[in-house]
Formats: sequence, structure tokens, C-alpha cells
Amino acid sequence: MIDFSIDRDHFPVDPWRLRETSYAPDQVGVTETLFAVGNGYLGMRGNNPEGRKAHEHGTFINGLHETWKIRHAENAYGFAEVGQTMVNAPDSKVMRLYVDDEPFALGDADLLEYDRVLDFRDGVLRREVLWLTPAGKRVRVVSSRMVSFPERHLALMTLEVTMLDANAPLTISCQLLNRQDGQDEYAAARAMATSRPDPRKAERLADRVFQPGEYSQHDNRSVLSYRVSNSGMTVALAADHVIETANEYTVTTSIEPDVAKNVYAIHAKRGVTVRITKVVSYHSSRTAPTRELIDRCARTLDRVRGEGIDAQYTRQRRWLDDYWERSDVEIDGNDDLQQAIRWNLFQLAQATARADGLGIPAKGVTGSGYGGHYFWDTEIYLVPFLAYTSPLWARDALLQRQHMLPSARRRARMLNEDGVLFPWRTINGEEASAYYAAGTAQYHINADVTYALAKFVRATDDIGFLANGAIDIAVETARMWMTLGFWRRNGEVTFEIHGVTGPDEYTTVVNNNMFTNVMARFNLTYAAATVRTLAEERPDAYRRMVTRLGLRDEELLAWEHAAAAMSIPFSENLGIHPQDEHFLEREIWDLENTPAEQKPLMLHFHPLVIYRFQVLKQADVVLALFLLGDQFTLEEKIADFDYYDPLTTSDSTLSNVVQAIIAAEIGYRDLALDYFRHTLFVDLADLHHNTSDGVHVASAGGVWSALISGFAGMRDYNGQLTFDPRLPAQWPEMRFRLIWHGVRILVVLRQDRMLVSVIGREGTARFLVRGEEFEVSTGHDIEIPLDGQGPVREGAPTQSQYRREDGTSMVPQLPAHTGSVPGIMPFDEGVIEL
Amino acid sequence: MIDFSIDRDHFPVDPWRLRETSYAPDQVGVTETLFAVGNGYLGMRGNNPEGRKAHEHGTFINGLHETWKIRHAENAYGFAEVGQTMVNAPDSKVMRLYVDDEPFALGDADLLEYDRVLDFRDGVLRREVLWLTPAGKRVRVVSSRMVSFPERHLALMTLEVTMLDANAPLTISCQLLNRQDGQDEYAAARAMATSRPDPRKAERLADRVFQPGEYSQHDNRSVLSYRVSNSGMTVALAADHVIETANEYTVTTSIEPDVAKNVYAIHAKRGVTVRITKVVSYHSSRTAPTRELIDRCARTLDRVRGEGIDAQYTRQRRWLDDYWERSDVEIDGNDDLQQAIRWNLFQLAQATARADGLGIPAKGVTGSGYGGHYFWDTEIYLVPFLAYTSPLWARDALLQRQHMLPSARRRARMLNEDGVLFPWRTINGEEASAYYAAGTAQYHINADVTYALAKFVRATDDIGFLANGAIDIAVETARMWMTLGFWRRNGEVTFEIHGVTGPDEYTTVVNNNMFTNVMARFNLTYAAATVRTLAEERPDAYRRMVTRLGLRDEELLAWEHAAAAMSIPFSENLGIHPQDEHFLEREIWDLENTPAEQKPLMLHFHPLVIYRFQVLKQADVVLALFLLGDQFTLEEKIADFDYYDPLTTSDSTLSNVVQAIIAAEIGYRDLALDYFRHTLFVDLADLHHNTSDGVHVASAGGVWSALISGFAGMRDYNGQLTFDPRLPAQWPEMRFRLIWHGVRILVVLRQDRMLVSVIGREGTARFLVRGEEFEVSTGHDIEIPLDGQGPVREGAPTQSQYRREDGTSMVPQLPAHTGSVPGIMPFDEGVIEL
Repeated sequence: MIDFSIDRDHFPVDPWRLRETSYAPDQVGVTETLFAVGNGYLGMRGNNPEGRKAHEHGTFINGLHETWKIRHAENAYGFAEVGQTMVNAPDSKVMRLYVDDEPFALGDADLLEYDRVLDFRDGVLRREVLWLTPAGKRVRVVSSRMVSFPERHLALMTLEVTMLDANAPLTISCQLLNRQDGQDEYAAARAMATSRPDPRKAERLADRVFQPGEYSQHDNRSVLSYRVSNSGMTVALAADHVIETANEYTVTTSIEPDVAKNVYAIHAKRGVTVRITKVVSYHSSRTAPTRELIDRCARTLDRVRGEGIDAQYTRQRRWLDDYWERSDVEIDGNDDLQQAIRWNLFQLAQATARADGLGIPAKGVTGSGYGGHYFWDTEIYLVPFLAYTSPLWARDALLQRQHMLPSARRRARMLNEDGVLFPWRTINGEEASAYYAAGTAQYHINADVTYALAKFVRATDDIGFLANGAIDIAVETARMWMTLGFWRRNGEVTFEIHGVTGPDEYTTVVNNNMFTNVMARFNLTYAAATVRTLAEERPDAYRRMVTRLGLRDEELLAWEHAAAAMSIPFSENLGIHPQDEHFLEREIWDLENTPAEQKPLMLHFHPLVIYRFQVLKQADVVLALFLLGDQFTLEEKIADFDYYDPLTTSDSTLSNVVQAIIAAEIGYRDLALDYFRHTLFVDLADLHHNTSDGVHVASAGGVWSALISGFAGMRDYNGQLTFDPRLPAQWPEMRFRLIWHGVRILVVLRQDRMLVSVIGREGTARFLVRGEEFEVSTGHDIEIPLDGQGPVREGAPTQSQYRREDGTSMVPQLPAHTGSVPGIMPFDEGVIEL
Repeated sequence: MIDFSIDRDHFPVDPWRLRETSYAPDQVGVTETLFAVGNGYLGMRGNNPEGRKAHEHGTFINGLHETWKIRHAENAYGFAEVGQTMVNAPDSKVMRLYVDDEPFALGDADLLEYDRVLDFRDGVLRREVLWLTPAGKRVRVVSSRMVSFPERHLALMTLEVTMLDANAPLTISCQLLNRQDGQDEYAAARAMATSRPDPRKAERLADRVFQPGEYSQHDNRSVLSYRVSNSGMTVALAADHVIETANEYTVTTSIEPDVAKNVYAIHAKRGVTVRITKVVSYHSSRTAPTRELIDRCARTLDRVRGEGIDAQYTRQRRWLDDYWERSDVEIDGNDDLQQAIRWNLFQLAQATARADGLGIPAKGVTGSGYGGHYFWDTEIYLVPFLAYTSPLWARDALLQRQHMLPSARRRARMLNEDGVLFPWRTINGEEASAYYAAGTAQYHINADVTYALAKFVRATDDIGFLANGAIDIAVETARMWMTLGFWRRNGEVTFEIHGVTGPDEYTTVVNNNMFTNVMARFNLTYAAATVRTLAEERPDAYRRMVTRLGLRDEELLAWEHAAAAMSIPFSENLGIHPQDEHFLEREIWDLENTPAEQKPLMLHFHPLVIYRFQVLKQADVVLALFLLGDQFTLEEKIADFDYYDPLTTSDSTLSNVVQAIIAAEIGYRDLALDYFRHTLFVDLADLHHNTSDGVHVASAGGVWSALISGFAGMRDYNGQLTFDPRLPAQWPEMRFRLIWHGVRILVVLRQDRMLVSVIGREGTARFLVRGEEFEVSTGHDIEIPLDGQGPVREGAPTQSQYRREDGTSMVPQLPAHTGSVPGIMPFDEGVIEL
């Protein structure tokens, strides 16, 4: 793993806030992401209000996207034809400042002081700057920005300017600016993107994205609206402007289709502050006309005007108090980690809180990476956190999948399958991945969605959700597996699934991917069991579903037969699960001898090169060991981890968290902590060099999973809440909250004991700790003594095990492999006799 | 196979000519292709000179292409970024006719007579029409078109009009017309192409393709020139106009950047013919300025003016006499087949004769299919014919690969391989395939090129060609295999090649594709042997090569070691060669129960669906059995053919010819003839519904291979010319010519004997017939008695062998596969116990 450290003078430790003490122009891409504010619907990157130098002036609205024709080099039946890309919405952040007609611009200004803070408790971004103007006048410039959690369509911004030494004429130009999806600025960035393809970046749109709709100004309000050229989506934004000052000033306004200005010319006296607040509302729609959206913006702004601006800050603070009360994870005595944990948990709120009926983009609303698409990240990396802290948000995320069933049904037909096939990546429900090898072939998305459904129902016991139609997800995904797979007799009769890609995107289109088959088995079993439960507990809902889907009883039996006969690759020789049926036959990539400048592999090697080696982008088998860990023995977990860990590049940020959890479970305590730290700081230390594209939201979810499932050892297999703690030796105490079947519990985990209490609403919760049953109820806290923190395994597995110690050729008397890709020869299914 | 028949009233049988006796507007797409004229450099589709209704007004110049940025849905390292598409050159075919100011247009005209003929002996397309004008006047309109073989840059066209009943004013407008790559007409066609992706069609270019250069008119000459927008290539065309008539007439001319007109207004008297001849020249270049090309056009036209037009027809006739003397294959007593054979052989001349240093596009110069790209078609389907009939053209084709070595070397580096990797498809030498699964992964292209080199050297004994640098092809391709493959010990030590696609594009990116490994083995062995031969016979050339390539002696040993240890999949159980290491584990596609409207599969199923089944687009193992047949026993050939034939869709036209040859060899005599007929008529009967995109040139080459290698049983393994005839029972006699080591022989094959004589230049040829050695020399014809035509196997293998006779589920007590793709369950490596 990469070594890293954070400059703590530049970014001081603070358990509740992210702080930056100086302006670093070369890091704006990263800090725009780190200091972004958003609520899951609306997001604004941490651009400066002056609106000058930026990596990306980003304002994102979840689901607001453009479509474009994919131009395949060679096309084929069923390839996605229409690309979907989240667009960069018109920018309302701009509040330009001029003193003595000199523009204030961070890169050029002589800054005497600089301090920027994102506070996780009130969700406000604040910046305070002391500027020495070219004329030698000191100016204090204080600004703030907040995207409201309680008011989904609302953002507040302030700019406060005080002349400290002398009077001066000030101009503050508040703008709403349509940047045409950022095309006013990115010629250079685009050229770069072309010279070195990076599949993680969004496709840039070539043509005009926003077609102007109605626009207007009256009183202190400016309004713009647009229709997105091809997708036909609509968006409107409106801003009210409030000035507070004892200085004299005049206001001028101007508007045209792409820019609205409310400009304040102020005769600023020394020591007399001027403060301008901009109250902004965004509304968007797939169908409503722009005029209707303008009305919605007006309603939001009028309501805020009625309630008052201060009330919005108060509501925000209260909302976040609630959030932390449900979601906080505390580490005693380590503010460094604490700050990073809270930053990640805060990002989870910013990405998911007000997604409401929408999906959760891979970068939330903080950047344009992955085109604003929704992936399995939601189901596997976010739903666990949501189900245990904010179950309603988990329900929303699953509801979005339920609404996607019709398009997923069409997609299944296109792929000649029964049931549904969820898109690998999408905004509007249609498959947007045209690179099937690492896209459509990831059929496991179906099982992932059902797994998340099961996770939610387990944590909440919310059978009503199933009864209301979510059961269709389980049934229709199960049906897909039955036609994708087939029966084969080769000795024994097995159910096989061919031509699929697992989570590891460095090996594609294989037969019997272990993860896929294990998850499909779960999908089939769960669907059958859940249909039976529904028939028993909600017979009416069951009958409606049977009619709706034409479900036949034999299908349930077929699912169970297939699950029972599911082919799960296992090597008796190595005692491990091959990642797929033929994984072990591949040449082994010599990761230890691959130079750093050739990483990540995907940016330096053609897929055909990567695909033919044993090398992993991210955990695959190991993820199955976590998600369905009750189906594997400890010995299997150790053997699998030892085999795959040295082959895993972690070129995907989804990997470290999984490695951390299983490392913790099987006793690699230092390694687990190391993987955890890499998950925790993936954005804060820009470990993947693309934090500028937005927050790695799934990885943030992974931080919670690593803490709760990794270190607290929480699992919920078969609907039982269990703990088998693995608290790192360096940590005296960890505190966290969970909601189990509606009951909120607080867990205090120490090296020698675990304290559990019910908080909030009265109730009782049952769980197991290392096999022993416990019950906790309101007023009856319990204390469970712990005999240590599980097994201890020193060090970490290494790839050297595959190689001769003297480094000689693997096949004496035969010429060595001379390729420019470092390769190790696999022997007898991958084992080297040393 | 599809049943088909040809309407012989519409297309009468004629052993030397293709004739059409009526105008069929619904078939213009196909007939434009069938009646195209070209010489391998310049090609003109069979559009009518009036220039009205057309499927595609096509004028193609080999290698004249535009480049465009591929817009990947998801990009990755090493994917082709730049598309290459042959453009539709400015049209010189247009000679519009007006009588009494009424335009003559085939679709609307009242035709009393119609006759169109393409003559294979003089290479001239002639049309004769009797038109009854709306005014009731009969007009005889005779036109002709010829693209010269001896003069690469020359085309001749004539239009001859005679008023039969009355005088009339005539206007004949001769035009050079830039149609901007056909964009003036294809809105509808483009829309269609979009609605149903067909990877066989060329990508349409969106922007203006031709930028005007100099243009001018003087005397009877018009000149236009252009630069191709992105590729920067240049093209010029010029036309001289000659009018012959006793009628009075006036001429007017006009020119602008996209059209030049020479318009003749004639006072035509009854019975007095007017004849206009258009002499056209095209020149193109990657680098020369348009002005230089205009000069070249002028030189061509001036020379023709000097020699006279009639001399051009005479030279053309003589040139074709020579061609047929070298290349004709005669079938006695079957003019139906004879005509089709000659049409195909004529297409081979039209595609290859004057390609000179260029490649041979998949459609020659007859259409825009496959974007004018060069594929392995040349090496495997055309070079055999060329090497044995026009060896110089084979040498040209290989020279083009030799010139491609630098870009192939760069491509190999991009793919992390040593040596070279030839592009799967290209015009300018760079890989143009961005769909790696059925493109770049076809590493076998390297072995195909070396195989063609070996074929040429065997047939010609031209070691000088190797010495001059072609040896580099063998060496550099061999080097690529050494790094692509790797050593593996699993029991025995084998050399394995993973992650490749064989010729069958319905199964992609597999390990140890049998065809690839067999061909790679040949490549390695041949390279080592040929380097040694060179060292012995041309020590100077050898030393230069060693210096040039830095070749080390150990490399030769390494190649031979790898070849000897090459992993060749073989199933002991079935006695067959699996197409790849894991092919037999796949589900079997139930082709017998796949409805006709779902074929070809590639247009009706997603690649992921097709790829996971045992189903073949085209022969793969069976092709290896032909190309390197001495490495396999007859029993293996029978077993392999029986297994694969029922799984082979022949959705590629490259398939039937191979099936025909092996069917003939192993004794399926009727089946062989059936496959042959389907190869023969693939375009003449439009069996693949895309003849409108151009001639299937490789299939035309396959016609020759099926005749000579299939029915005459000719092989040249190890440099020995051998025959093991399989003359169809229906054919009393077949006559053909070959050039072997510079000696031309005529072979007359009959049911009971074979007569061989040397023709042309004096010489001696040695060969074997069924193991017995013979020698023939000038004046000493020989007669070899034949004991029949090889083994006889009745019928054809069927897929039913994989299925229970009662059609019940394969796995009693377990639910059947319910997918919408018909599937058959494989048992014990594909065998069903009946």
C-alpha cells in the first residue's frame, strides 16, 4: 500500500471540522471536493465565491443529465446507444468582489490570513480571508455557504466585507451563471482527457447543453431556467439577495439568457461591514415545463423569506444533531482518525440524505466523476450504513430500484433473459454501460440489489415494504438467474453460470465467478423463502404479487434446486475458492515487481493484457466471504485471503474496505488497520489521484462498514444481529449507534468489555456476542466481558509465496518469459514448490 | 443452409458474362455491386450513368480514407482512438440525358428493351436500352463503362443515343460531381443503420469530408481536386470529353468546387447517332498536394489522347486474356456454375490486380462495407489464389505487410508484447478496431500473415523476397508469441496462450484457442527454420537481418521449444479438438430450433448471450484442419468436422468455403458441393442480404480454394505440391491452371484420371498424387489414372446427436432450462448418451 501523510499545519486536526489554513492553488481540484456542500439532491463544489481559478466550477443536481449518442467503433446488438451524463448545472455560487475596482482573486491576492472550515455539526462552509489590496488597504472577507438538509431545494450563501484601514468603493457582483456544463473553461482539461483515457472520468459533451427558457428579474430576485438539449430535462434556479450594511450603496441588475446579475456598489467606510446574503433555490424535472419549475423556486424562496434566514441555519443544525445522534462513530483519544471518520460520515449524509426517490451517484453531488451514474455502490456499500442508521433513506434507495423494474425488465429481454436485469450503470434506469466486459456482464448487480433488500428488511423487519411491491425485486431477479444459468452434468449435476464478470474488473467474462454464483445462490434462496413468508404473513399482498408477476409454485422449487446445485469453484489442492472456474490457470501478475509508475494498471495496460493474468482490481472472493460469511469456514477465509490479498491492487477504492473487514475477522490486525486507514483517507489524502473528480462515496460507506463490521465485528446473517469484536489494540474505546428493528442502541466497545444500552424510544433488542445471546432494553444497560479481540495473525500475506526464493526462472532448462509485463508462472494450480 | 435459386429469365446463364434483362428498382443495391467495375485501385459501382435512383452512388479509391475520433462509451488504455473509413470519392460516372427536355431516368422511363452485360473477357460493362419518351419517340440509349486494368488510374465511359422515330433536341450533361461521401442522399439509409446496428456496415461520417482544392476547365477537360478533411489525403479527378456525331451541337461548360459540367446540346436527327466518350483519370495521395495530383491526371489523359481510346479497349482485352490464361477454372457442361465461377474469379482481379502497394479491402473497391478496411481475408483467402496464379500480386500484398512493420511494432508495445502485432483491421497501418473482443484479441493475424508469406515462398521459391526484408515478418511475429504466451506446469510443462480470440467471433477472449495455438506453433517453427535457411543460402542478408532486428541465436531455440510444448486442446473423451481449452464446458446452442428470423445471430443477440454458448460464426478448428492439415489424422478431421459442423451458423461468409474443403476431404461429397454452391452464389444470390455493401472478396477467393484445394485436393504442406482429388460426381471434368516455382501447368481432372501438362514457358514441375510422385515437363504431358474420388460419407452431421431423441429435458427430475435462447445441456464434455 502507498505510504501517505497529511500536512497537519495545512489541514489541522479537529474532531468536528475540516480546516484549511492556507490557500494552495495546486490543490484546488482536491479541496473543491473536500469542501463541497450538498444534500444528496443539490451539491456545490468548494469553489471560491469570487468564481475565478477552479478545477471545476461544479453545481450538481442529482439526476439532471444530458443524453448523447454513443459512437461505437464497432456496434453490436444490445449495446447501449445512448450515453447519459450528469450535467454541470448553472452556477449560483458567484459573488465577485472588487475593491477600488480591483478584482479580488485568490490566486493573485496578497493574503495576510486565510482560513477555511467545513463544520460537520452545522453543515456550513466558512472562509475568512484578510486581503492586502494593491493599494495597501486591508480587507476582511468572510464568506459562507450552506446547502440545506431540511429544505431540499435551498442553498444559502453570504459574503461579508469590512475595510479595516481606509474607506473604499466596493462592488459585489452576485451572479447566476450558466457555464454550459463547464464548457467555458475546460479546453485544456478536455485535451488532457483525450491524450490519456481514464474510464473514471465523465464523457464531455460537445454541444450546447442548456437551452434557455424563461428568465426574469424583479425586486431582489433573479430567475433563470433551461431545458437540457437532448434529454429534455428542465431546470430552474432563482436567487433572492439581501444586503445588510450601514454603508451607502446602490443596486443595479441585468439579465440575459445565460447570466443574471445583482450588482451592489457600496461606499464602504472603514470598519463598517457590508453583508450580502444570497438565498438560492434549484428545481429540476424530467417532464415539468420550465415555467412550472420557476414557480416552485419562487415558493421555496417565499417560504424562506417568511421563516427568515436565521431559521434555516437553526433547522440545519438541528437536523445534523439528529443525524449525528443516529450515525456517529467515536474513537477515543484519536482526533486524527476521528476527524476523518466524521468527514466520511458527513459525506454519506451529503450524498444520500435528500436523494429521496433518486439514486445515489458514485460521487454523490460533489463532482462529475463516473458521469453521475448510479452503480451497485449504493446496494453493497451504502445500504448497510443507511439501514442501520437512517432506515428511511435505505428504503428510498430500494424504492428507486423498484421503480426501475420496467426498464430492467426490458433490458433482460434484450439480453434474452427472463425477469429483470438491472443496469450496471444508469441515471434514468436504462443501461448506460456500453462496455459490456466491465459493465453489462456484471449480472451480479441483480443479486446485489436483492441482497440490499434483504439487508434492509432484516435490519428493519419492514415486511410492509415487501408487501407494497418490493418483493418483485426478489422474484424478478431470481428469474433472471434461472435463464442465465444452465444445468450441466460433468460427473455431478450442477447449476452453472457462464459468461459473467464479478466485482473484480481485472478479470472479465468468465464461467462460474465465485462471487456471482454465491450471490445468485443467495438471491434464489432468499426469493423463495421471502415469497413463502409473504404468503404466510401477508396473503393478500402475496396473491396480488402472484397475479402481477404470473408466479408459479414450481418456480420456487426450481430456484431452490438451482441454489442447492449451484457450482461454487473450489480447489482441493490449494484449499481456496478460485475466483472463477479457470482463474488459477492464468499466469500470475508479479505485482511486487511492477513499478509504481505503471499503476493503477488500468491506466497503463490494455484490458487484454490485464485480463489474462491473475491480478485483481478489487476484492471479489473476499467480498463474498464478508457478505455471506456464514457460508464459509474460518479456514477457508484465511486461505482465500492469503491467496488473493497479494494479488489485489486495490486500484478500485471499493477494495480496501473489504480487505480490512476480512483481515480483521481472521486476525491480521495491523493489516486491517492499515486497510482501514487507506479507506478513511482515500479522499482526504487523495490516494487515488482523482478526488478532484468528486468524493468516493462508496468508500465513505466502507468506512462505516469497516468500523462496525470490521472492528465491532457486527453481522446480521439470517436476521440475527451478532458481534464478534476486533477492536484495534491501539484504540481504548469505540462508541457507535445502531437501529435494530426500530430500537436504537448505543454500543461502547472496549478492549475488555462491551457496554450496550437502548437510547431514544423505549424498546428491547436481542443480539449475540460470540455466540452468546443477550437482550438489552430501556433502562437495563448491559455489560459483556470480552476475552480479547479475536485471533492474531502477524504481518501480511505476500506474493513471494508464488516464487522461488532465489528468483530464478520457474522452468529450468526452458527460456524464461521475456515479456514486458512482469509475470510469474503458475504451477499445479498456482502453487510453487519452494 | 438456406435454399436459394436465381431467376434465370432475369439473369440468364452465360459462361463469360453476367447479364440482366430487365430493370429491377428494388434490387439496385445488389446489382450495383454485381455490375461494379474496378481494378483494385479504382472502383465504380454499377450505378446508371443518368445518376438518378441508387442504393449508393459509389466510386472508391483503395486507401482513400477519412479519419474520425472514436467516441467510446467507456474508454481504456490502448483502445483505438481514431477511426478510419474509406470515403466515397467524387463521382465521374454521371452522364445525364434529356430528350425534348425530358430527363431520362430508369425508374420512371417507359422501357421497351433493357439489357445490361458485364463481360469477363473485356472487362466492360454495357447497357442497351430502348426508351419510349412521354412524347412517344423511341430512343436507343447505349452506354458502357470500363475501369482499365493496364492503366491503373483510368476509366472510360461512353453514351450513345439514337432517335429512332423522329428528330429531337438532346441534352447530355457530363458531370464530375462531389457527393461529399454520399451525404447528399443517405439520410434514410443512415436512419435505418441507426435503428439496427450492423457491424458489417461502415461508420457514416458526420462532417464535410472533401475540402475543395484547385479546379479548372479548358478545352474539353474538367478537373476537380480535394483534400480529405481530417486524414489530409488528397485526390484529383479529371475528364476529357469526346463527341462523335453528324448532328449539329453546341457545348457549354461550367465549374464550381463540387461540380464540373460539360454539357452538349444536340439537334438530333432521326437515325443519326450521337456518341460521347468520357475519359477519366483519378489520382490520390497521402502526402502530395492536389496540384501535383492534377498534373498526374493530366499526364494520364494526355497519354490516352496520344494512344487513342480504342487502344485502351484492346489493351484491356489483352490483359484479361492473360489473366484468364493464368487463372481460369473450367467446369464442363455446367454453364450455371461456370458463369458464377468466372464472376467470382473476375471479382478477384477487380479487387487485387492494381492494389499494387496497397492492401485489399474486404469489399475490394465495390462498396463501403467494413469501411474499406484490410483484414486477414487477404492472407488466408486471397494469397493462396494469387500465389498460384499471379504471384506478383501476392508479393505486393505481402510487401504491404512488410511496410506495416513499424506501426505493428508500436502496436505490440502498446499491448506489452515484443516483436510486432499486426492490426486486426486497418487502412493506414494503425489498428482501427476498438472492439477488442472480436478485433485486437485476434492475435492470430500475426500467424496468418506469416502463413501467407510461407505460402508465397513455397509456391514461388522466391527466397529473394525473404532476403529483401520479408524475413522480418516471420521473426517479429514469432517474437510476439513468445511474450504473449507463457510456460505452465500442470502435470506436464506446456506453452500456453491465454486471452485470445480465434477466427470464430461467436466465442471470444479464451485460453488456448486451438486455431491460434496451432497457427502460432507454425509461426514459431517456420520462423526458426526460415532464419536458418536464410543463414545458409543468403548469409549476407541473414547478417543484415540479425543486425537490424538484434536477433539472438537463443531466440530460435526458444521458438522451437515453445512450438514443441504448445498446448493444443484435445478431448480424449470425444476424440475432438475443443475450440479452446474450455469450449466444451459451455451450453450448446440449439441451432436446429433457432427460427430463421433470429439469424444471423449477431444481429439478434447480445454478444454476451452468443459468447457463452457453443455456437460458431465460422469455422475455427476446421480452418486449422485445412491450413495445417498434415498435423492431423483423418480420424481427427472427421471427428472435429462432425462435432463443429452442426454448431456452425456460417454467419460469416468466410465459413462455407472452409467447410466445403474439409467436407470434400473427409468424404461428405454432397455437403461439400452444397457448401461450395453457397460460397459461389453468396453475392450472386445475395445470400447474406448485404451484397449491396459490396462484393465478399474473401469468399470469392474461397471459390478458387474450394475448387482447387477442395475438389482437386491440392495442398502444399512442407513445400510439396500434392493432389488428392475429390471431383464431384456430377462433374465430368474440371480444368485449371497453376504456377509452381515459375512453371505453369494445366490440370485436367476427370472422374477416372488426371491429365497434367506444362504450358507457356518451358519447365518441369514435380508433384504427388495420393502419395505417388510425378514429374511433368514441356512436351511431356502425363496422365494419371484415379481410383475414384476419395471416401464417401452420406448425408451430413446433425445437432440431433447432442439431444435425446424424445426431446425431453436432459436432466430428468430437475427443471428444464426456460430461457428464451434455445439451449441444449452439455453432458460429460458435450456427449449425450442416447
